[in-house]
Amino acid sequence: MRTLVPFDVRDPNSRLSPVLSPSERRDFARVMLRDVLDAVHGAGGDPHVLATSPLPDALASDLEAPVIVDERPLSTAVGAHLEVDSSDNTNPEMDDRSTGTAVVMSDLAIATPTALRRAFVTPDPGEVAAAPGLAGGTNVLVVVHPGFEPDYHGTSFRDHQRAAAAVGAPFRPIDSFRLAVDVDGPDDLPEVLLHGRGRTVDWLTDAGFSVAVTDGRATLERSDDS
Amino acid sequence: MRTLVPFDVRDPNSRLSPVLSPSERRDFARVMLRDVLDAVHGAGGDPHVLATSPLPDALASDLEAPVIVDERPLSTAVGAHLEVDSSDNTNPEMDDRSTGTAVVMSDLAIATPTALRRAFVTPDPGEVAAAPGLAGGTNVLVVVHPGFEPDYHGTSFRDHQRAAAAVGAPFRPIDSFRLAVDVDGPDDLPEVLLHGRGRTVDWLTDAGFSVAVTDGRATLERSDDS
Repeated sequence: MRTLVPFDVRDPNSRLSPVLSPSERRDFARVMLRDVLDAVHGAGGDPHVLATSPLPDALASDLEAPVIVDERPLSTAVGAHLEVDSSDNTNPEMDDRSTGTAVVMSDLAIATPTALRRAFVTPDPGEVAAAPGLAGGTNVLVVVHPGFEPDYHGTSFRDHQRAAAAVGAPFRPIDSFRLAVDVDGPDDLPEVLLHGRGRTVDWLTDAGFSVAVTDGRATLERSDDS
Repeated sequence: MRTLVPFDVRDPNSRLSPVLSPSERRDFARVMLRDVLDAVHGAGGDPHVLATSPLPDALASDLEAPVIVDERPLSTAVGAHLEVDSSDNTNPEMDDRSTGTAVVMSDLAIATPTALRRAFVTPDPGEVAAAPGLAGGTNVLVVVHPGFEPDYHGTSFRDHQRAAAAVGAPFRPIDSFRLAVDVDGPDDLPEVLLHGRGRTVDWLTDAGFSVAVTDGRATLERSDDS
């Protein structure tokens, strides 16, 4: 499935400022992006990076995905690049895989191909599918319905559910912990260290981060010598 | 499937102290317990409340589940009340449903029968299945292997995975957002308000809680007149 992966080139993961410097945040965001692109490929998806500004050449040539640059706000940019087939996709002769677009956030550091495949399953004609993120967001969105307009402001998961109902599209929630965890603040990093694999975990470990247990809960620790 | 639901009678949900009084916390814990018992029933499970001390008569008679009282620490109590059939459960004549025990935490306020059914599916002979909670815990555990000992301290999800390997049991992770959210601190309450149903949401709403959006994220708000 064609998959947009929105990526903030300029000031990614600003809520990680308490634990990462600006250059570390940029590095870390790119590492997560590459892991997410791998997971999308692994799930049989066709990822396209939707970047807020042109990527540095070295990064762009390193990514195994085409890059679309759109400087508009997230919801506008995503809405503009959905490719939804408005022909009669109830026709059983039609290849469903050619319809619809998925949107997968670039900071889903513990997403796996198995989890994404649950989102990418051949959808019902005209459906909207979504995986909630922690704190109300929408981490994965699959849009097949031509009239549906994404809106990522605030509690977007609930809003997307309402917007699907408003255009008469069936709504399919995707119940996944791996797709719910996005890397927003420092509290999300223990989840990555506990459940992640790949470059992102290696990067955090190399940067001296580890999981401690404080008062029965996993918390973040950083060694002094990193 | 036989399902233990551990319940702290004396000082439940202590991390909610910043937003709820002691008597509110007790009420709220009981409301969540009843919703969880409903979800277990709805998933075809046979719930047993595993209480840290005797329940008040009014509560016990209100619950649609037998109550086992065990005052020992959580891991010891759960381990003692697992009923795992140690006979040859690779025998295809045997009813798999009679083997194994599930353990479902009593604060999984957005658990649904659909999510729990994914945990309760007839397991592989001898497997251990687990759903991670946020911050490293184990929110749902399904034990069929006779040699497996639960240990809920610290990052128990990872520890349960290792413990399964140590006794040669296949480990099946259950990837569910609805089972990952446990009500630990105030930050978890917006998840309940956004994704929950039933008594728990009604209780929170009646107590004046609602979801606000602060800096793009769902946050908790309480009206003054509650």
